[in-house]
Amino acid sequence: MPRSGAEARVRLREAALDLYGERGYDATTTAEIAARAEVTERTYFRHFADKREVLFDGETELRDVMVGAITSAPEDLSPLSLVLGSYAAAVPLFVAGRPVAERRAEIILTSSALQERAHAKSAALTEALIGALVDRGIPEATARLAARVGAAVFERGSRAWDGGTASDLEALIAQAVNELRTLT
Amino acid sequence: MPRSGAEARVRLREAALDLYGERGYDATTTAEIAARAEVTERTYFRHFADKREVLFDGETELRDVMVGAITSAPEDLSPLSLVLGSYAAAVPLFVAGRPVAERRAEIILTSSALQERAHAKSAALTEALIGALVDRGIPEATARLAARVGAAVFERGSRAWDGGTASDLEALIAQAVNELRTLT
Repeated sequence: MPRSGAEARVRLREAALDLYGERGYDATTTAEIAARAEVTERTYFRHFADKREVLFDGETELRDVMVGAITSAPEDLSPLSLVLGSYAAAVPLFVAGRPVAERRAEIILTSSALQERAHAKSAALTEALIGALVDRGIPEATARLAARVGAAVFERGSRAWDGGTASDLEALIAQAVNELRTLT
Repeated sequence: MPRSGAEARVRLREAALDLYGERGYDATTTAEIAARAEVTERTYFRHFADKREVLFDGETELRDVMVGAITSAPEDLSPLSLVLGSYAAAVPLFVAGRPVAERRAEIILTSSALQERAHAKSAALTEALIGALVDRGIPEATARLAARVGAAVFERGSRAWDGGTASDLEALIAQAVNELRTLT
């Protein structure tokens, strides 16, 4: 049965999560993921550049939402407020993506290759936010500091999050901002 | 001529920097690095686990110095002061390592595999600092926030550094701490 590109992509993502979870990341091939998703391996590589990328789908959407929040924010916000606002804008994505994120996090822990990719993805997101801040006229060095501090604050909040509602996560981020102020 | 392990290691590091610089990272093999260093490929792999690790020698020493600074610091310091103190303790290493660090940074920029490894190394350093803070009784979440904010501050300072004296770098870090306070 022919499948749309978007459907194939979702099936490939699911198949990879299943197989990496069942057999382990190293022991799974892209051919096996494609077979489980009922598509060809060529289709796999049309969607994902390598065996790792399939786990990081959704990064583009996240980046677009966060960059968009910085670009469209009111004029008088501080650099750190802009960064925190961009994480706030992404809260619905974090809530919706939580079940997949949990399974993915467990798989990533099992492979240093996946951990490296995860670090690179998170660095790329920070770079995108820095770019958006610079586009608003904020000096690059300040933008970089704000983006990295904002990421640390978000991580502090989201690690304490039990996967509950958006307002739970928002409250934890607010709490982390207070903790940052105490720290400095 | 037989060489000591330490001498071979230094020669391998130099050979890798030279060859990665001359021919590019992808086009260079560990066999070629070993040949340039006048050791066997087996010796290469006795010192470094893969083709990337040779560029990250010195990370262990850096981590030991920084963790040691946190472990031996006076009792009444705040979490962020402990982290900043550990970067201050490493300033002599950064000064001494600057010429190699500059060559290495140029090579890393040319390869996403190297960038991933660099991100992972920097994350591992942060984890080590978090561990040292936790060993002093600081709650893990606070330790994590302090370590990441401290890393952002250090990066802000060191990026502005022209590779001059230790006191230049120290002044830039102090300036970055002030910038952090303004930001928050």
